[in-house]
Amino acid sequence: MHTTKDRIVTATAELFRRQGYNATGVKQIVATASAPFGSLYHFFPGGKEQLGAEVIRWSGGVYGQLIGAVFDPAPDVVTAVTDFFAGAAETLRDTDYADACPIATIALEVSSASEPLRQACADVFASWIDAASERFIGAGIAPAKAHELSVLLLASLEGAFVLARASRSTEPLAIAGGAAADAVRAALRKA
Amino acid sequence: MHTTKDRIVTATAELFRRQGYNATGVKQIVATASAPFGSLYHFFPGGKEQLGAEVIRWSGGVYGQLIGAVFDPAPDVVTAVTDFFAGAAETLRDTDYADACPIATIALEVSSASEPLRQACADVFASWIDAASERFIGAGIAPAKAHELSVLLLASLEGAFVLARASRSTEPLAIAGGAAADAVRAALRKA
Repeated sequence: MHTTKDRIVTATAELFRRQGYNATGVKQIVATASAPFGSLYHFFPGGKEQLGAEVIRWSGGVYGQLIGAVFDPAPDVVTAVTDFFAGAAETLRDTDYADACPIATIALEVSSASEPLRQACADVFASWIDAASERFIGAGIAPAKAHELSVLLLASLEGAFVLARASRSTEPLAIAGGAAADAVRAALRKA
Repeated sequence: MHTTKDRIVTATAELFRRQGYNATGVKQIVATASAPFGSLYHFFPGGKEQLGAEVIRWSGGVYGQLIGAVFDPAPDVVTAVTDFFAGAAETLRDTDYADACPIATIALEVSSASEPLRQACADVFASWIDAASERFIGAGIAPAKAHELSVLLLASLEGAFVLARASRSTEPLAIAGGAAADAVRAALRKA
């Protein structure tokens, strides 16, 4: 069952992913969520900033589940990384280059403007890095190297999303995905 | 001599870099530029979108000059790449994690919202990729590999900026810079 609060959170998450934080107004949120205007302030007395922080953490959790969904059934971590970038490229193409990372736009918008929102983004990125690290450690890679590899993969994925959305091409994701798989292969050889 | 138009462009560029496109209003722009309100529409009859496209291209040109400024005096391309990431990390730390890429925030904000602004961002990214490719080709790397390497470096730099600004740490830039130098070294060995 979708409660009004759930609808507000999911609608906001989709608006943030496509157009970012600043372009998303509370009127557009309640209209998209088919929620009465007052309900936003009922559930989020701190208004858009409080809702924003909750949506960042919620989106981070949903997107973070993708890491397990891709890595855990994969035969090995190299295949998992390759599949992750290929899946991201496919989603981007299928959504006319709109749906990339749910929080990167917000992270850049708010990092110098809102401390609670910056912190929420930082926590989400850290949780993704830890989730990926766990899988690399499980594949026999030392913890420090697994962390480094996870930061590198997330950085190259986020940057490839920036270039891919601007250029309307999946080439940056193909290149970043190939390099990411190479980096994991090299780490496994040294493991 | 700084004309009113120059002041509007440079003030807008700085506001875009720190807070993005949507948070930057025309009133803030003219106030920061110490320009009369009407002057913005005098120089940019198309308003904020026209100014935005010009600022993206102008910032892209200024930042693009950094590529030559770092690569051309460097003893080799590996040192240049290492210096580029180290310089970016230093600037970020010195500006309290505000000054990273001048157009990445805008690129994510506008890619699904404004075709002229998306195109301006795409053109700037392509110009940076070509400028870096030229230096790798000059170091003996084959053109296709030089292009791939340049896309990879820009993607990992942009993504590291996202993570670094959110986490207020230069670790992502150190990791991405180390991997970028490794990738260039590997390409040189095969050249």
